[in-house]
Amino acid sequence: MSRAPRTEAPAPQGWRDYAPLELDPVLSGALSAFHEHGYHGTTVRDIARRVGVTVPALYYHYENKQALLVALLDRLMRDVLDRCRAATSDAGDDPVERFSLLVESIVLYMANRRKLAFLDTEIRSLEPENHARYVALRDYLEHTLVDTVVDGVEKHAFSTPYPADACRAVLAMCQGVANWYRPGGPLTPTEIARRYVDFCLGTVGYTGPPRAAARPARGRTRKA
Amino acid sequence: MSRAPRTEAPAPQGWRDYAPLELDPVLSGALSAFHEHGYHGTTVRDIARRVGVTVPALYYHYENKQALLVALLDRLMRDVLDRCRAATSDAGDDPVERFSLLVESIVLYMANRRKLAFLDTEIRSLEPENHARYVALRDYLEHTLVDTVVDGVEKHAFSTPYPADACRAVLAMCQGVANWYRPGGPLTPTEIARRYVDFCLGTVGYTGPPRAAARPARGRTRKA
Repeated sequence: MSRAPRTEAPAPQGWRDYAPLELDPVLSGALSAFHEHGYHGTTVRDIARRVGVTVPALYYHYENKQALLVALLDRLMRDVLDRCRAATSDAGDDPVERFSLLVESIVLYMANRRKLAFLDTEIRSLEPENHARYVALRDYLEHTLVDTVVDGVEKHAFSTPYPADACRAVLAMCQGVANWYRPGGPLTPTEIARRYVDFCLGTVGYTGPPRAAARPARGRTRKA
Repeated sequence: MSRAPRTEAPAPQGWRDYAPLELDPVLSGALSAFHEHGYHGTTVRDIARRVGVTVPALYYHYENKQALLVALLDRLMRDVLDRCRAATSDAGDDPVERFSLLVESIVLYMANRRKLAFLDTEIRSLEPENHARYVALRDYLEHTLVDTVVDGVEKHAFSTPYPADACRAVLAMCQGVANWYRPGGPLTPTEIARRYVDFCLGTVGYTGPPRAAARPARGRTRKA
């Protein structure tokens, strides 16, 4: 865990609990604008108009459009990391349990915070220093996952010969949830997260018996 | 295969072969501009300047900016589908072989045509009718994969209780390759595709013995 490039912050008590996202009005307006028109398709004037403030008032709080993107992506990564840290501290030392709760935590985030999570497609719009900082935080999450899988391979719980590549694949699969999930769809975030734990265990070559979470719950019909 | 919403076109002979991408200069300029600045951040004037033609000359060939995005995404989906069709016709009836070659074909595409594949993040910029058409083609690819996995589950080659969700996860994982792959990296597209076949077989709960493609090639060192 020495790779952590971040200051310590209290982990949220309930990493599975999601209240509505609280953002200040300017960040909230920026998030909606970036989501609808992309970063490069949005002007500071658009955001000010959307929020109902003057452009100078907006500049009083945020230096420029880049600062808004940085603040949103920073919020995204810190939230994900805080929740993942809380999830792993629930998991103890067993790598299968740690990996499962990490995946569950990431998927719950992608579904419950999908608009924020979708902003990951805008990181190409970050200036070099901001980009490096974001990537360092994202790498930290990836390393946490890789360390867990390597531990699982050493304990013969996982069989993948390629833990790093497998974890990159796992993260892409989980991030994909932010693209397609819509509230009110056939599955709740909790149900989706359970299925993804099963998929991701398969991806890293989990060698044990099927886990409770991977079985269809209470007689629900299969989707395909 | 009755879901196919497309006209027949001759499948490319070598679905694993990639020559440099051939696009007319206007489409090529539009692709670079969309890649760097996003669809909404690009104007027709930007593209004309980049290509070295006048704006009226550009309009002579393409009705508007939307038509350029549609032409590029159309090229992307038709190429992917043609190559996947060729791959499945190589595979015969065995669902494990069909699934493996489909995944290999998709991953090879994502690595070799990463700039075009990355445009998938711009489909939110399509007008409703164009969006519906693109999604129909993409759904066709997803259904081909789901049909294969359902067949594999019936033949006890795959154990996933959720073929449709698993295939969505598989596609997201494969599409992710377009985001991180760079030519000249430590692995060739062929090596990446082999590893992803292994990961994706795990995701759908492949029940058989390890396949040749899943083993490290000729003593290469593990990456993690």
